[in-house]
Amino acid sequence: MADKANVLLVGCGGIGTISALNLEIGGRATVTAVLRSNYDAVQAKGFHIRSVDHGLIENFRPTAIRNTVPDIKQEGTTPFKYIVCTTKNVPDVQPTLVDIIRPAVTPGYSNIVLIQNGLNIERPVIKAYPENVVLSGVSFCGSHEISPGEIVHEDDDELYIGAFRNPSLDATAEDAAAQDFVARYGAGGKCKPEYSPHVGFTRWRKLMYNACLNSICAATGLDTGRLQLADGALDGLVRPAMEEIRTAAKACGHDLPAELVELMIRLDPIPMYNPPSMLVDIRKRRYCEFEVIVGEPLKEGAARGVPMPTLRVIYNILKAFQWKLKEERGLVEIPAPKDFTNTANGTVTE
Amino acid sequence: MADKANVLLVGCGGIGTISALNLEIGGRATVTAVLRSNYDAVQAKGFHIRSVDHGLIENFRPTAIRNTVPDIKQEGTTPFKYIVCTTKNVPDVQPTLVDIIRPAVTPGYSNIVLIQNGLNIERPVIKAYPENVVLSGVSFCGSHEISPGEIVHEDDDELYIGAFRNPSLDATAEDAAAQDFVARYGAGGKCKPEYSPHVGFTRWRKLMYNACLNSICAATGLDTGRLQLADGALDGLVRPAMEEIRTAAKACGHDLPAELVELMIRLDPIPMYNPPSMLVDIRKRRYCEFEVIVGEPLKEGAARGVPMPTLRVIYNILKAFQWKLKEERGLVEIPAPKDFTNTANGTVTE
Repeated sequence: MADKANVLLVGCGGIGTISALNLEIGGRATVTAVLRSNYDAVQAKGFHIRSVDHGLIENFRPTAIRNTVPDIKQEGTTPFKYIVCTTKNVPDVQPTLVDIIRPAVTPGYSNIVLIQNGLNIERPVIKAYPENVVLSGVSFCGSHEISPGEIVHEDDDELYIGAFRNPSLDATAEDAAAQDFVARYGAGGKCKPEYSPHVGFTRWRKLMYNACLNSICAATGLDTGRLQLADGALDGLVRPAMEEIRTAAKACGHDLPAELVELMIRLDPIPMYNPPSMLVDIRKRRYCEFEVIVGEPLKEGAARGVPMPTLRVIYNILKAFQWKLKEERGLVEIPAPKDFTNTANGTVTE
Repeated sequence: MADKANVLLVGCGGIGTISALNLEIGGRATVTAVLRSNYDAVQAKGFHIRSVDHGLIENFRPTAIRNTVPDIKQEGTTPFKYIVCTTKNVPDVQPTLVDIIRPAVTPGYSNIVLIQNGLNIERPVIKAYPENVVLSGVSFCGSHEISPGEIVHEDDDELYIGAFRNPSLDATAEDAAAQDFVARYGAGGKCKPEYSPHVGFTRWRKLMYNACLNSICAATGLDTGRLQLADGALDGLVRPAMEEIRTAAKACGHDLPAELVELMIRLDPIPMYNPPSMLVDIRKRRYCEFEVIVGEPLKEGAARGVPMPTLRVIYNILKAFQWKLKEERGLVEIPAPKDFTNTANGTVTE
């Protein structure tokens, strides 16, 4: 009889809820889900899920739901074997993920699974939790929370799991943890996660979508369908950005095939008009993941002398968007405006 | 006694109204102004102007106001010596300026004055009216129409006038027309327009503001004050764009001094938060002048092998914004969306 792993899942939106569902239906995990904005709704009536993989599921509830991260020591909770993080990763806004999960991490025991976008996301986690295995999850999964607790999962779940390397841990143990997580996640049979030890390759591959399509949709305000139709957006923005990612990936040792360019562009075929995650964030005036999705690849490229002019501009535009949102939310202050009609170059007399 | 020139002024917003005012108060021009969105308001109560140069002026009315361009032949109108165009220049949207002014142009007689932004704006005009002198007006003038007929002119009027060269006309006559227009415009003494025969230099110089600050404000959604305050916007976007303009200008024979970079950046000193024209257009969901302001300099640079990666991206982003607006207004059509929850990768059963 298979054991059940005690799993904490932090961030139960579109992707997180489908992860919780896959883990629960396999019978090899008990999931405690930490919810924020949708806590009250899900507490009252569970999740309502309409899914290409699972069909219609009403009133789905993970084993436990909470609105805070459990404090293992204070609460005497059973330690978590896996801490699955499916929140957005926004390192430029406090508190960061590392701080959020701290009370739930058991050093040397909890495996931290980052099902998140972007590059170098493991660095602060490994630094903060040097005795814990950190796993990489790369998900291509069109799943959105359209209202609190209501999930529409309209595009097949592709999930690639592998271990981030921590030089002070045993690589065999890291890989075993990745394989164990894959087995538990896939046990229900509705999703076939893939064990993918080439984490760097897998993450750079996803950047072909995220650093290029996702970010350019965010900067232009166009969804993926319209981006394919708009005058010059593919040739002027998307394809140059993708070539920059390919060149930077190559400089980092990952050979992304040229065919990926067109494959990623057509991943959302017309007439599908999909607003990718950063565009949704910007439309909803929420912080977006531009630092890990665009900023980190740029740093890797810059460190290796790869020119990435397209992505540098896209990065700085998204940074300006984020700055403005921070100003709106009071995180940055600006000098009070002055009425220049009465000073400076002249005086207006009325 | 000085003669009065018969002037048609097309486009009576922030800049156009101040131009009409300067021409009328000098007593050397009678202005027929063509109004569109503000016609009813101005017909009823004239312009209400609050100006750094002119003070408060209530109920200003040019000699004549109309809501159509006069048809010289059909109406038997006195021919116009000057046709002053102060509309936006949006060559990618019909009808273009050349079509709009056609009924009012007297071949070989009317001097067409383009007080407009951007580069190569004279080309379609000279092509359409090869016998008419075409003058360049470059205006730095902070003047806005805040409601129909209500003008706030808060920043000093700097106007540079010179002749665009038409190889089939006499250069001396072109220059004389420019000087005559300067005399008439400055006759009231409130604005000192400058005769500036180096039209190319003057227009490239203004691009340091327009192609860089104006366009980057439009792309990021930040006004000029916030652009100076936001993380990395100056170093990541504005300064690289300005260096690209300087390099392209140099390749075209115009040596823009390095000091212009900081001078233009500080033209709107903090705490002035000025939304430049293209940002205003985008906020108001109006077409913007990205083709003449960014597209044309890019073409000039490209023709001379100047790399302009920053402006290329900014251009394509503004092009995407314009495309979306065209879609909203029904100028472009896209395939109807399809519900992918019921097809493609799987079927959702409910």
